[in-house]
Amino acid sequence: MSLIEELNSQYTELSFLNSAAAIMAWDMRTYLPSKGNEMRAEALGYISTLAFKKRVSDELGSILEKLSEPETYNSLGDDEKAMVRVSAKAFKRARAIPPALYQKFTVLTVRSEKAWEKARVENDFEGFAPYLEEIVSLSREMASLYGFAENPYDALLEGYEEGMTAKRLREIIEPLKKELVPFLKRLITEGKAPETELLKGKFSRKAQEKLSHKALKFIGYDFEAGRLDETVHPFTIGIGVGDVRVTTKYQPDEFTPSLFGSFHEGGHAIYEQGLPAHLKGTSLYEATSLGIHESQSRMMENIVGRSKEFLKFFYPHIQKAYPSNFKNVPLKKFYRSVNSVKPSLIRIEADEVTYNFHIMLRFELEEGLMKGDIQVEELPARWNEKMKEYLGIEPANFSDGVLQDIHWPSGMIGYFPSYMLGNLYAAQFYAKAKSDIKDLEGKIEKGDLKPLLHWLRENIHSQGRRYSPEELLKVVTEKELDPEYFIRYIKDKYSHIYSL
Amino acid sequence: MSLIEELNSQYTELSFLNSAAAIMAWDMRTYLPSKGNEMRAEALGYISTLAFKKRVSDELGSILEKLSEPETYNSLGDDEKAMVRVSAKAFKRARAIPPALYQKFTVLTVRSEKAWEKARVENDFEGFAPYLEEIVSLSREMASLYGFAENPYDALLEGYEEGMTAKRLREIIEPLKKELVPFLKRLITEGKAPETELLKGKFSRKAQEKLSHKALKFIGYDFEAGRLDETVHPFTIGIGVGDVRVTTKYQPDEFTPSLFGSFHEGGHAIYEQGLPAHLKGTSLYEATSLGIHESQSRMMENIVGRSKEFLKFFYPHIQKAYPSNFKNVPLKKFYRSVNSVKPSLIRIEADEVTYNFHIMLRFELEEGLMKGDIQVEELPARWNEKMKEYLGIEPANFSDGVLQDIHWPSGMIGYFPSYMLGNLYAAQFYAKAKSDIKDLEGKIEKGDLKPLLHWLRENIHSQGRRYSPEELLKVVTEKELDPEYFIRYIKDKYSHIYSL
Repeated sequence: MSLIEELNSQYTELSFLNSAAAIMAWDMRTYLPSKGNEMRAEALGYISTLAFKKRVSDELGSILEKLSEPETYNSLGDDEKAMVRVSAKAFKRARAIPPALYQKFTVLTVRSEKAWEKARVENDFEGFAPYLEEIVSLSREMASLYGFAENPYDALLEGYEEGMTAKRLREIIEPLKKELVPFLKRLITEGKAPETELLKGKFSRKAQEKLSHKALKFIGYDFEAGRLDETVHPFTIGIGVGDVRVTTKYQPDEFTPSLFGSFHEGGHAIYEQGLPAHLKGTSLYEATSLGIHESQSRMMENIVGRSKEFLKFFYPHIQKAYPSNFKNVPLKKFYRSVNSVKPSLIRIEADEVTYNFHIMLRFELEEGLMKGDIQVEELPARWNEKMKEYLGIEPANFSDGVLQDIHWPSGMIGYFPSYMLGNLYAAQFYAKAKSDIKDLEGKIEKGDLKPLLHWLRENIHSQGRRYSPEELLKVVTEKELDPEYFIRYIKDKYSHIYSL
Repeated sequence: MSLIEELNSQYTELSFLNSAAAIMAWDMRTYLPSKGNEMRAEALGYISTLAFKKRVSDELGSILEKLSEPETYNSLGDDEKAMVRVSAKAFKRARAIPPALYQKFTVLTVRSEKAWEKARVENDFEGFAPYLEEIVSLSREMASLYGFAENPYDALLEGYEEGMTAKRLREIIEPLKKELVPFLKRLITEGKAPETELLKGKFSRKAQEKLSHKALKFIGYDFEAGRLDETVHPFTIGIGVGDVRVTTKYQPDEFTPSLFGSFHEGGHAIYEQGLPAHLKGTSLYEATSLGIHESQSRMMENIVGRSKEFLKFFYPHIQKAYPSNFKNVPLKKFYRSVNSVKPSLIRIEADEVTYNFHIMLRFELEEGLMKGDIQVEELPARWNEKMKEYLGIEPANFSDGVLQDIHWPSGMIGYFPSYMLGNLYAAQFYAKAKSDIKDLEGKIEKGDLKPLLHWLRENIHSQGRRYSPEELLKVVTEKELDPEYFIRYIKDKYSHIYSL
């Protein structure tokens, strides 16, 4: 075996362990009977530990060391070089944390998630605060071990969005704030708000399921390489080559969450289904980053799914599915209703315009925690200040505020920014796709998304993990990340909808 | 950690690997999208190999060696001694086969199953024969490595039914043949055969599913620790503690296969659900043997499921589910129809009376192959002779004869006898249960199977793997295996049904 083959054989074994863990996790959230939970958690923990051991094994380290020697490295092809780069980086990062600390952190987050569930129900921030303090403290310790140039937050960000820094995030956020905070105020005070009551009613599960299937087929999701099931908190999971599953939740009184949720998860799923098959079992058979992943879901959910063009094609299906609700509702009215903007307390329920503000708030608080500028006990007060500043509202309790998300209890500090980056990447990618594909919007109006899928496959999905997110953006759009694309998209769309 | 704790820690890890493999296998046969098959097979193979390596590891060997030293062993409690006995036996057996031979055999069986699938469709015994020859040859090699006193077949049998030998099987089979071959002839020539046409018709999937659920609940299957799904070849699988799943198949033109199939799988499942929880993660948290397992399924499917008493309770539910089919069919007529006896070519479709003959035939051929008395090329001729002798019929092609089962292509020589043993054990256990439980049949008539479930839990399920099958039989029934119980059961039941 050549060294590269040895490396890939390690990664292939890792892909099998990950695949086992993934089907166990999928089942846990869809079909596992309740009494099986305890043993499943233990067995999944065991398989995850095997995978972790493989990621930090001396064997892998020695292969990577040999491959990194200049003479060897320089003799490799481009893909092979990328394999080594990606693997060596992941190896170094995984090895930076001593097993005892890793273990301590894992045990802590399991307990912390449990404590958070209780605290959220009981609106008890004080009860949860000690866990969060410990998570912040260990996260700071880990950041030092990962290493960073100026900001400990960067060391955590790197785990979710390679190459991203707090400094860069602030540069990106600045124009967003400057342009969109006043724009949001104008929408609310001067705009003509859509009606939204018409989206409420009674919606059969069966018809929702059918619409979700139709939506997934429309965006090119391959049902022979995946499936759609119901769950409590919808997610997409790549279980292996040819097996990428989506989930959704059918609410009896509203059908748009399952419809646009299916678009969202479907966007993630077509990405995974489009990873480069010939690179399976290597470190490149993976998405570029969380942010790039999110760009695919947000593009499908919002830019495509809530567009005039798509709804022109799809709304008749919705009317057919729910005639008593929509037969007398004209398309324009429906289009406006699913694009209503309203500052709200809960991130996951936020519209396109307000969503990023929720992320900025979390980023600023996380960064403060990591630098030691903010203490855990101050979080609720800071949270409310920022909600007021960005959205003009404040939560009446902790559960709708600082306790709403699972990310902190799970120890995932640094994760949130990828949600915002996803929105920005999506706008920039889509602008490029529109300029590359002749009459894209006309095609969508006719129900043909194939040209866009083809474009995404060629430019993004098939790249796997070859590039860092910023490199990919440059390769595809010939530009650095520029929040202007998003700002323009939002202003154009919503000025029109709100008749500004 | 004590040595026993070390042993159990090895077994606990093994239970996690087995649990991962089990959910992967379950999913493969229920929900896996078609394009995911290839990677799933590879990943499952990898996890299975990890489990195999654990079973033969030097670490486990050294723990067992220490535990087997007389002084240490004698200081152990009864359960602990059993743990060591069971583990040491399994270890010795697994280590008897060199990894290269094991690998060769595994690769061969994968190819052989594929070749068999094709051969069966094309009715091509010659095309499949070379694979079977190789399987027989490697099986003989493995039998020598396992070791045996007089008959190489015993070495294979041991892998499925601890302590069983070809000699003992012949002793058991002799009275079965002597009594039941002539009895079958009498049934057919002199008996009044039931009508069976009434079982054909149109049966909605939904109603079948409901009946299967009802049947499973009736026998005490715990849906919080399992679930029922659809598949092509129904099976039961223990995925972990609190998670034992059953599957069935709903045929549109007949509902009895899914109903009695659910009884059968449910019988297996309540066994696994009743394993001793306090012994989880040890070598005793397992069924006694395949034969004992089959006794539970056959008891539920036939002795209970097709009994007058049970049907007196359950038939109204069937009539309610399919009023147009059964509202004018009296109970007695229905009872007779599901207990019709007819020599047939396919084992898995055989009734209670003829089923064992299919097994005898396979046992006699397998033993001949292993001893070298029969050559693979002779199999079809020998098959037909024996079919004629036991059942009075002959297949018109290989696919309905020697090519019908997957066991030989899969390399599972020695497996079949456990099916027959299951029938015999079931009759003997049930006779004892009837004498232990006051008015068991009256209780079943009233729809109350709890006393029987309780009896099975206490006497069989909760024993786990403490005893060998013959020991268990003695502990529970105070007798050696005696085919008379089965013979009497069959003669009583069918003399009555066929008005002999």
